[in-house]
Amino acid sequence: MTGDRAARLDGVGKVTGEALYVMDFALPGMLHGAVLRSPHPHALIRAIDTAPARGMPGVRAVLCAADIPAVRIGQAVRDNAVFATDRVRFAGQPVAAVAATTLAEARAALAAIRVDYETLPGVYDVEDALLEDAPLVHPEWAGYEAIPILLREGNRTARARLRVGDVEAGFAAAHRIFEHRFTTGYVHPGYTEPRVAIARWEGTVQATIWTSTQLPFDTQADLALLLQMPPSRLHVLTLTVGGGFGGKLRLGMEPFALLLARAARRPVKVVCSTEEELTAAYPRQGSVVTLRTGVDSQGRLLAKQGRILVDTGAAATSGPLVASSATMMLAGPYLTPNLLLEGVAAYTNKATAGSFRAPAGPMGNFAVESQMDIIADAMGIDPLELRLRNIVREDDLGASGSRLRGVGLEECLRRAAEAIGWQDRKPGPHRGKGLAIGWWMTTGGSSGVYAKLNPDGTVLLISGAVEIGTGALTGVAQLLAEALGLRLEEVSIGGGDTHGAPYDLGSQGSRTLFCVGNAALAAAADLRGQLFVLATKHLEAPVEAMALREGAVWAGNRSIAIAQLARQAQLSGGGLIGHGTYIAPAMPHDASRTENHQSPAWNAPSFHAHASEVSVDPATGEVTIERYVVAQDVGFAVNPTWIEGQIEGGVAQGIGQALSEEIVYRDGIVANANLTDYKMPTIRDVPNVETILVTHPATLGPRGAKGVGEPPCIEPPAALANAIAAATGLRMTNLPITAEKIAMAREAAA
Amino acid sequence: MTGDRAARLDGVGKVTGEALYVMDFALPGMLHGAVLRSPHPHALIRAIDTAPARGMPGVRAVLCAADIPAVRIGQAVRDNAVFATDRVRFAGQPVAAVAATTLAEARAALAAIRVDYETLPGVYDVEDALLEDAPLVHPEWAGYEAIPILLREGNRTARARLRVGDVEAGFAAAHRIFEHRFTTGYVHPGYTEPRVAIARWEGTVQATIWTSTQLPFDTQADLALLLQMPPSRLHVLTLTVGGGFGGKLRLGMEPFALLLARAARRPVKVVCSTEEELTAAYPRQGSVVTLRTGVDSQGRLLAKQGRILVDTGAAATSGPLVASSATMMLAGPYLTPNLLLEGVAAYTNKATAGSFRAPAGPMGNFAVESQMDIIADAMGIDPLELRLRNIVREDDLGASGSRLRGVGLEECLRRAAEAIGWQDRKPGPHRGKGLAIGWWMTTGGSSGVYAKLNPDGTVLLISGAVEIGTGALTGVAQLLAEALGLRLEEVSIGGGDTHGAPYDLGSQGSRTLFCVGNAALAAAADLRGQLFVLATKHLEAPVEAMALREGAVWAGNRSIAIAQLARQAQLSGGGLIGHGTYIAPAMPHDASRTENHQSPAWNAPSFHAHASEVSVDPATGEVTIERYVVAQDVGFAVNPTWIEGQIEGGVAQGIGQALSEEIVYRDGIVANANLTDYKMPTIRDVPNVETILVTHPATLGPRGAKGVGEPPCIEPPAALANAIAAATGLRMTNLPITAEKIAMAREAAA
Repeated sequence: MTGDRAARLDGVGKVTGEALYVMDFALPGMLHGAVLRSPHPHALIRAIDTAPARGMPGVRAVLCAADIPAVRIGQAVRDNAVFATDRVRFAGQPVAAVAATTLAEARAALAAIRVDYETLPGVYDVEDALLEDAPLVHPEWAGYEAIPILLREGNRTARARLRVGDVEAGFAAAHRIFEHRFTTGYVHPGYTEPRVAIARWEGTVQATIWTSTQLPFDTQADLALLLQMPPSRLHVLTLTVGGGFGGKLRLGMEPFALLLARAARRPVKVVCSTEEELTAAYPRQGSVVTLRTGVDSQGRLLAKQGRILVDTGAAATSGPLVASSATMMLAGPYLTPNLLLEGVAAYTNKATAGSFRAPAGPMGNFAVESQMDIIADAMGIDPLELRLRNIVREDDLGASGSRLRGVGLEECLRRAAEAIGWQDRKPGPHRGKGLAIGWWMTTGGSSGVYAKLNPDGTVLLISGAVEIGTGALTGVAQLLAEALGLRLEEVSIGGGDTHGAPYDLGSQGSRTLFCVGNAALAAAADLRGQLFVLATKHLEAPVEAMALREGAVWAGNRSIAIAQLARQAQLSGGGLIGHGTYIAPAMPHDASRTENHQSPAWNAPSFHAHASEVSVDPATGEVTIERYVVAQDVGFAVNPTWIEGQIEGGVAQGIGQALSEEIVYRDGIVANANLTDYKMPTIRDVPNVETILVTHPATLGPRGAKGVGEPPCIEPPAALANAIAAATGLRMTNLPITAEKIAMAREAAA
Repeated sequence: MTGDRAARLDGVGKVTGEALYVMDFALPGMLHGAVLRSPHPHALIRAIDTAPARGMPGVRAVLCAADIPAVRIGQAVRDNAVFATDRVRFAGQPVAAVAATTLAEARAALAAIRVDYETLPGVYDVEDALLEDAPLVHPEWAGYEAIPILLREGNRTARARLRVGDVEAGFAAAHRIFEHRFTTGYVHPGYTEPRVAIARWEGTVQATIWTSTQLPFDTQADLALLLQMPPSRLHVLTLTVGGGFGGKLRLGMEPFALLLARAARRPVKVVCSTEEELTAAYPRQGSVVTLRTGVDSQGRLLAKQGRILVDTGAAATSGPLVASSATMMLAGPYLTPNLLLEGVAAYTNKATAGSFRAPAGPMGNFAVESQMDIIADAMGIDPLELRLRNIVREDDLGASGSRLRGVGLEECLRRAAEAIGWQDRKPGPHRGKGLAIGWWMTTGGSSGVYAKLNPDGTVLLISGAVEIGTGALTGVAQLLAEALGLRLEEVSIGGGDTHGAPYDLGSQGSRTLFCVGNAALAAAADLRGQLFVLATKHLEAPVEAMALREGAVWAGNRSIAIAQLARQAQLSGGGLIGHGTYIAPAMPHDASRTENHQSPAWNAPSFHAHASEVSVDPATGEVTIERYVVAQDVGFAVNPTWIEGQIEGGVAQGIGQALSEEIVYRDGIVANANLTDYKMPTIRDVPNVETILVTHPATLGPRGAKGVGEPPCIEPPAALANAIAAATGLRMTNLPITAEKIAMAREAAA
């Protein structure tokens, strides 16, 4: 039943180690591919000589840009190719690739490829990128295909605005005005299974791609574009996926595997190494936020003006969308009569950034929620009280003019504060508590579900969304089972591939349970209708009188087992399949408030409050998280256990960004491309996360559920920065807040 | 378009060698399994000691009957287990199995298993099996679960009767009566890819089985029964299948792979060796036919009494059904007012026989059509003329009382005779021509098809039937493409597995194009309806005014591309899928004519005439087939090329059974378990087959098509025996008609 803490359907394989990942998979006769990457952050390519590699032992294929169709892809703008052609734009950009019998042979062949580079000055800081005389990352991009609202101004790719009221008038009326600047760096999604793909061709007409992707259908479409062939000829399959976090939305190793396999006429596997992950994956964008906020004498927000500048690296991918969404994060779940918020995305000569979990979330939230605490301190108002005076409540308008329903924010805030013991904010020396609140969207988009009746009366749930480790598909299965009167163990999960499954926008944007769940309910209704028609002659009752429960169709006190109907349907013609689809309706908003905005209307927004207690070592600056509380309004908890799992995992990632993680660039070169120097939190760094599930049902969600996957990583930086400030009196405005930075700030302050 | 000689969709992979067969497939960490088989045809098992094998190098699992659920399976009667328990019933019966790191290690471990046998007298001749004091193959079978009409009389498992008129009165009125006896032996289906399976478990709850099967759903059901688990937990997948011919209908290596993989907790592959194929596969039943036929003075058939005794070996499998069908073959496509035909199936201590292509066909036809020539010769009537006086024509009643429609037999007969130059039956010394005619059923049963619209407007045809090499699914794709106004290359084929595909009775009984094709037309209608609804707002026309052609929906002179509707459907919710099902309606027949009969009503019967010309070496008896003509009434030729391919392949198999193939038993042991001594025809033995496609449409078939796959192997033994008789004057009544037998018969005659 929904609401039950049922074991996840993908659990047994994962805990026994028997789940099959693409990383562990192999095909007979399979070759191994490796990618040659640019050592320079910005350079012209004068010549590439792959000939020396071609004759080397075990080598079966060598490719560079000249060997493949000249096609660029990209979401907002087609600014990205498989291999660099005349120019490399970041250190780590693919230049060539080799397939050989062994990985060692492939790597040896890479070393034999000669590339003649002419190095160029690069731009590695996103604020520098906006300067008049900055080197252009894409000098020729006027010719690229792009969405209409794309900006092509120097290195700027996007500028989105959110405008409410008259911000100057607001500031004029303000009692006090606060202005601050916050920065964050690149962070890696940190999935356990690296990006990996295996491709196999049959003739030149069709290929199968096994890949660890979140989006089989996007992968299919992008690969089809790259290879200039119909998408239907590419069968994209996932196996078990070892985490995604938005880092596996865009093409990873698939193009290399696919192109090498075609050239070699053998299956090819390409695995992304840790060094490649940290230099050439899709990290979270870096950001620079400036925020000017005016309040009245009671601390009520009167006006906010701000800009977030996101660093998209060498290609835009989701950067323009992130810049849009970030304006909503800068507004936050607050009532502010006057707003002028701007999101700008710009290129630099660094790795292409992507869509890491709540892509615009932590950077915007870190600025807003840090500043709220600064304002509270300056005004002598308790930070909890300041927030309570300003937050949105039921039926309020959000920043973009959408009417908000199911707003559990006040409950989240009060319960988190109560749980952390907020009345005692500074419980001891070097010890302090911090609060942060936020909101986030539930992504919409199209989902289809097939509910296929098995011969034993159980049901196979076939979805094009991938179980990326969240447990969301177990939740969908719970919805489906309940709707069909089955037990959860009578539903199994299939699909996750482009051929067997219906189209799905995929496992991204906290949408899986929301959209796929709604589609599953529609599929259940379809299957139920078919079962009822089959049952009429057994039950001698009209379908209107029928109901499904306990594995049977009932009419009054007569019943027939679904298993019996399944056998009958099979014997009489191919069995039954229910097909349901869902797409979230467009959320009304006030279009006059937005400009070049890609994300103005949020479905089923979620609300959250995080509270932390830290102690800070006065000598070293080391932060110990003593307690961590999350109160999250999830609308309805289809399976509380796995929502708690999402919250715990999201907090862990948030802690990483808050305290230790950053891909450090020195002159355009990653200085810490290994998991010793790039410090992800371990089990010793993550406290027990105390979770409070608040349930103010969303209008559209299945049983009221809202998206829950992304939000938990949004607030930890602010919640921890605020606690650190309470413990130390130091206001840290640059992530990650490492022990070194705290110690140095303490020294500077002393 | 249907009727086109389109290239088959599975062709490229097969001719390039890139098609992936289970035989070529492997999983990471996969073990290799091998099966210990009884060396004795009949023995009690006193003890099995597997302990010595368990500690051997590389060994990961050892199993015998004691280690697995005590479950018997079987079609008509559950008389078959995975491993022998207390008794072995044929030489080659599985007794134990081992999984090890290498096949050599597995085989070494098999050799270490100690089995203590007490040998028993066996029965190896099917006529001996009927004797009062014959050893019983299944002494305890009164306790087996079975279908109601199963006979349990000594070794007899089935007796089916077909009775028309009063046969004694018919004989009393006859001008002459002819009585003969014909025998045939075991024949192997001879698929190119041996039976092979790979199994992989995830926990103890679910398994994936890659197997070279014709029937994924039957495999799923039988494995579920064996393992006592729900079928839905077993995902049965096929890859490319290297031929089936009915030999891959029943469980092959799957139980061993599945049980060993569960025990070893590693994937396991089990391949059937050639020796195992020839000793323990599912060969065609051997048979003994006695036939007594009375004719009037003009050669018109007045009465026929006959019995076919089929040798099912150690388990019944399809033997009882074959005995039933064989009575229809003994009747043949002739009008005979009085019939008393009996089919009996009996056990022997030999390999379990199965359902090789047209299971009751060649043995029944060999007897009937040989005897027709004997009668013609004796009566001084031309064999062609004798047949023309007796064959069924449009609207006649068949032997079981079904009204026959679409009867192209006379056309087949006349055209085959014309093509072979029948007017000159004995064109030279040692040279002669032979004719044989026959009929066969198109198996019905349930089929489902999904027609899934791809994002590019092409369609994926998902069927649970497997492309076993016939090209039938290309024909289904042609039907689907035509119905949707698409080109054939815009349809691709998926499915062939139990999870992704709708239920299908599978690729057997010449039913694939007939049933799956009809289901595909229903799926096309479903998808078409959905496309029309989507098109209404674009075309501003009612769906009644719409049509599909050239990849678009048309209303008057306005149109919208299917590809555009596909994108729209994807963006607005999961895309479109059409679902169609088909089951052939029950064919009316006269129930008073049959007794314990499993196959009295034939859907869409096909009619065929074969004509051959041979020369026979007078010294050695060697037969050279100079010409071979087949005229087959296929109803409608959806793709003439692949029907011709079926005819050529079927004739090749028929030639094998006619002239060289037999699994030879000596005291219950196969004497020729290798492909040197078991002589399948090679390309040097098979002549160019001249094919004439006759098209008298079937009422139910898609566009009138009838089943075409099985028939071509039915008539070659009789057509060749009759040609040999014409060339030599020798009447051979025992298959195969080897050169040695001809030479010996000539010597005996001289």
